[in-house]
Amino acid sequence: MNNKLVKSILNGDKVSISRAISLVENQHNDADKLLTSLYSYIGRAKRIGITGPPGIGKSTLVNELVIALRKMKKKVGVIAIDPSSIFTGGAILGDRIRMQAIGPDDNVFIRSMATRGVHGGLNRAATEVADILDASGKDFIIFETVGAGQSEVEIFRTADVTVVVLSPESGDSIQAMKSGLMEIADIVAVNKSDLPGADAFVTTLRNTLEISRSAKGNNKNITIIKTQSNQGIGIDDLLNAITEYLHNLDRSGQLSERRKKLLQGRIKSLILSKLENIITEDPAITKLIESYSQTKNKTTPYEFVNKVIKMMVK
Amino acid sequence: MNNKLVKSILNGDKVSISRAISLVENQHNDADKLLTSLYSYIGRAKRIGITGPPGIGKSTLVNELVIALRKMKKKVGVIAIDPSSIFTGGAILGDRIRMQAIGPDDNVFIRSMATRGVHGGLNRAATEVADILDASGKDFIIFETVGAGQSEVEIFRTADVTVVVLSPESGDSIQAMKSGLMEIADIVAVNKSDLPGADAFVTTLRNTLEISRSAKGNNKNITIIKTQSNQGIGIDDLLNAITEYLHNLDRSGQLSERRKKLLQGRIKSLILSKLENIITEDPAITKLIESYSQTKNKTTPYEFVNKVIKMMVK
Repeated sequence: MNNKLVKSILNGDKVSISRAISLVENQHNDADKLLTSLYSYIGRAKRIGITGPPGIGKSTLVNELVIALRKMKKKVGVIAIDPSSIFTGGAILGDRIRMQAIGPDDNVFIRSMATRGVHGGLNRAATEVADILDASGKDFIIFETVGAGQSEVEIFRTADVTVVVLSPESGDSIQAMKSGLMEIADIVAVNKSDLPGADAFVTTLRNTLEISRSAKGNNKNITIIKTQSNQGIGIDDLLNAITEYLHNLDRSGQLSERRKKLLQGRIKSLILSKLENIITEDPAITKLIESYSQTKNKTTPYEFVNKVIKMMVK
Repeated sequence: MNNKLVKSILNGDKVSISRAISLVENQHNDADKLLTSLYSYIGRAKRIGITGPPGIGKSTLVNELVIALRKMKKKVGVIAIDPSSIFTGGAILGDRIRMQAIGPDDNVFIRSMATRGVHGGLNRAATEVADILDASGKDFIIFETVGAGQSEVEIFRTADVTVVVLSPESGDSIQAMKSGLMEIADIVAVNKSDLPGADAFVTTLRNTLEISRSAKGNNKNITIIKTQSNQGIGIDDLLNAITEYLHNLDRSGQLSERRKKLLQGRIKSLILSKLENIITEDPAITKLIESYSQTKNKTTPYEFVNKVIKMMVK
């Protein structure tokens, strides 16, 4: 691997980080080599997931968190997952607009990723981009998504702490409370908490969480924080809740347990993606599949596949 | 496999079809056996993909197509892919609302599938649900999606003909014209064609398609049909365009070529999903991955994965 690139990533050089991210996003041949070279520098950063319905002030909240973390001299990476529709285009302008809010700062790196067009799966790409940011010396990496799809929920499994953002006004928030989303929440931020009905909403939310907690017999205590992201209100409380959660996770040994589990999952997907390459590129297997598809068959695809597996696997 | 279930699916029994679809959606152990038993009855139905921006009258258009096909005594299956957000819930009510419009009819089967929560991938599930409907004697199977994500676009690769629905009013339509979506279009329906500017929109669309066609040096001729789905206007024209397209595809031998290619792709994903099961269930591999994750390692995951592959693959 290009040692110069590795060194400048470790030094936090933005251009090199961008280049590395492109390699990973495009599954360039050099991506694995690069990640191998960076591997021993990965694992220090804490990963924060932030999700919630669209239009709830999530981006503003993330920007405020970044500003608060910078005041504490922390280095921050943001990965904004944009569920870009074919129709609405993509996240192309996102980075620039956000950059303006935070200003030029060598210790903040913001990257938008579209949900389509990422080779090898969004989850893999997002995790590897986080690894690059981790190696580049960031203290915190924030994943931001609207949580629209399964692949985005998967990403939160790789976060150390997950914040679900709701608002008193939104019917979507009620929906989120009912849906599986609350199951991934470690902390809930009730944004736009100056709106009428905010306190009632928080009470309902607390009761709902309490009931679901006792129904499932778990003892997970979800902290609820009221915020007004456009006024910068509640940001410090939220940040305290996040850091306290992470601190407890670390002290109890759960952080290292979680990361071991994550590593296992990652290894499985890496193995699978290698096997996919073999199936696509091995001439014998390709020929076998081609000739099967050309002939009128008596064996069904399901039987044929079992035959191929027997040939392939030890 | 339960012979009674197979027989009643082949007879088009709705309850049995629903049961079979559930097996496939949940990747039940019996799903592969069932699909194997049905395999020799699959391949007769023509598969139509219909996509376009939200709110453009797609569902109404699909309903009208179903009614028109029923007048021709054709049996129809509809698979509506709902890009259900965590926040907006799902497609739970969709089937019932649609059923009411078409009325009780043993020769129409409508199924909504949510984009989340489908085991083993939406594309695989949708294709296998189509196989069940195909085996149940449907003449046409319509896939309907808003085309929001990569996985939905994948589904269109399995369709014999793809209709993109646009409207003169929508900015999303302009976006769709610019985006990769037009590349999967075989036919374009310009819905809400009574709106002002419809003719100008069609002209622009025609010119855009012409320019892109000559730029890419292909000779694909995309038919444009004006429709007003809420008035039932243009439905017959659209249906004629679809059946003509399918007829030409069949006559030129392209249909059988396409289906061979599809079969190859499907076999690859079946192999991959079997290999995934092996990685997850084989005790030796599981143990190896676990012990790797437990120890402070000098080998990186990327190196470790190569070792596992060597052990696993012949």
